[in-house]
Amino acid sequence: MQSHQIRLASRPEGAPDDSTYEHTTVDLPPLEDRQLLLRVIYLSLDPYMRGRMSAAKSYASPVEVGDVLVGGTVCEVVESRNDRFASGDLVLSYSGWQSHALSDGRGLRKLDPKVAPISTALGVLGMPGFTAYAGLLEIGRPQPGETVVVAAATGPVGSAVGQIARIKGARAVGIAGGPDKCRALIEEFGFDAAVDHRSADFAADLAASVPDGIDVYFENVGGAVADRVFRHVNLYARVPVCGLVANYNATSAPAGPDRLPGFMGLVLTKSLTIRGFIQSEFVDLLGADFQRDMSGWVADGSVRYREDVVDGLENAPNAFGGLLTGRNFGKLLVLVGPDPTR
Amino acid sequence: MQSHQIRLASRPEGAPDDSTYEHTTVDLPPLEDRQLLLRVIYLSLDPYMRGRMSAAKSYASPVEVGDVLVGGTVCEVVESRNDRFASGDLVLSYSGWQSHALSDGRGLRKLDPKVAPISTALGVLGMPGFTAYAGLLEIGRPQPGETVVVAAATGPVGSAVGQIARIKGARAVGIAGGPDKCRALIEEFGFDAAVDHRSADFAADLAASVPDGIDVYFENVGGAVADRVFRHVNLYARVPVCGLVANYNATSAPAGPDRLPGFMGLVLTKSLTIRGFIQSEFVDLLGADFQRDMSGWVADGSVRYREDVVDGLENAPNAFGGLLTGRNFGKLLVLVGPDPTR
Repeated sequence: MQSHQIRLASRPEGAPDDSTYEHTTVDLPPLEDRQLLLRVIYLSLDPYMRGRMSAAKSYASPVEVGDVLVGGTVCEVVESRNDRFASGDLVLSYSGWQSHALSDGRGLRKLDPKVAPISTALGVLGMPGFTAYAGLLEIGRPQPGETVVVAAATGPVGSAVGQIARIKGARAVGIAGGPDKCRALIEEFGFDAAVDHRSADFAADLAASVPDGIDVYFENVGGAVADRVFRHVNLYARVPVCGLVANYNATSAPAGPDRLPGFMGLVLTKSLTIRGFIQSEFVDLLGADFQRDMSGWVADGSVRYREDVVDGLENAPNAFGGLLTGRNFGKLLVLVGPDPTR
Repeated sequence: MQSHQIRLASRPEGAPDDSTYEHTTVDLPPLEDRQLLLRVIYLSLDPYMRGRMSAAKSYASPVEVGDVLVGGTVCEVVESRNDRFASGDLVLSYSGWQSHALSDGRGLRKLDPKVAPISTALGVLGMPGFTAYAGLLEIGRPQPGETVVVAAATGPVGSAVGQIARIKGARAVGIAGGPDKCRALIEEFGFDAAVDHRSADFAADLAASVPDGIDVYFENVGGAVADRVFRHVNLYARVPVCGLVANYNATSAPAGPDRLPGFMGLVLTKSLTIRGFIQSEFVDLLGADFQRDMSGWVADGSVRYREDVVDGLENAPNAFGGLLTGRNFGKLLVLVGPDPTR
């Protein structure tokens, strides 16, 4: 069996480009005892992957140059010598940017397509949904009537943040790029207000959308958007920080002035809580609650989700580039091979 | 009765100087019913006062130009038409930079000189001590074996932070300016390590003093010291922020590069908790615990304190200038009038 793969050819300086990726095809060896062969259906593309392409030490080890790029996947078991899995099983895996992979079964989770579409295991019912759930509820702790702001708000994290905030009785304000996304925030996801950060009126629109200030800013973008948002935070505001997409392609510290002293002054005078986190920290604490709550909310329609599916593994690099600049519209997935449930 | 006063003559640009202060003498009117006349013994000088001299909105209203500067005091009641207080009573007040003041009794707390020296109500058993206690225990939450770092460590907040950290089983590393202060950290206050931020070897000395990294950084200075400290924070480190003395005299945002993106990146990759606070937030929650614990620790010698007493109200401006540059050595107090208990 052959596997088509995309490997890290070189570490990107700035935005990833063609030189970042190497497309290869390898022959997989025959299955050993307890192994199984996976066929990838969906590959998840997520902003954190940019960090793994860099050599810098982070919360996870970098991908080594020459290795297959990492990523969550939904796969079909096509052959199994493992008692726990049978041919035809659908599983959540972390097999990365490739069409087929061997596994010893560890870390796989079986998916039941009758419960929810299998792709949601990579989105609203998966890591991005849990990032929203854990960060908002454990760190943000929105109270009824408070104002929650999130950017990249049509993405899988942002859209879940806003909808969960509303379920908890808070007011949800979403920031997104362009009128189509802003319309979706109101009409699809039920946000109370939507602000277009590409508009020339962004600063004024944002101010008008948070008349009572901001109690929770769910930070996943950083950059100029965050700079504006922080001008409206209330006393005791909470800021879960799960990502800083605006910075990921930066090649050097930006020019001055140095905004750090002003930021720390704001932390002090507003008694802010700034808390970085990775969702994995909260799995033991909240994973079961999440599966129960979020499955229920998706089933009863109180949480909706949107997917942006790109066809073909070979298109993953281009799609990933767009993810870092906000070109996707919804949870970005690569359809690597046919989805037998659709 | 006359009161000698120091008023805010003009808002300082940068460091306060002679033009900041106006020395005046006023005649106090006769006591009305329920009023009492206070004679100030000790005036507390604290870094937060620099903020009150500026017009910028903060967690407390600024002092208006022409008003007496604010500040905590220990006073003797010299005349009383209030049933709750008698002539000769010693009280904690907030009468500010003046020798005498009228009060209606609200907000006063009686002090018993047999329990502890009355000056400690402005230091280790007062606001600075409570800042250390609440910030360290409620936000920093040091665990046995963890490393706690604090700067301005011979000051009333820093010295309490280090000693409480040790009581809780953590390792205390203090940063101070000059060899005398560093010696006091070890010999007087029992810190595990002391680092001189004025030494040319500061960066290397700091690194050597935190071989296991930093789990709690109690932030009260900011600036270049904080910049170095943050290079050593561990995953899940907690950073209570109670002050940023290094920034208080800044007149504009410093030149670049802009360190904020790098700082937020650190917050993310290290899952840091940055939490600004003012001690008053925690009084209801922890005030009684503090009085019990800290009085006990001072009485049994497990928490020691150091006072730097300047004689005469007229010397308060110069002493306050030194406070912002670290010239004081211990809790800075102005002896405004004689202490009858000494």
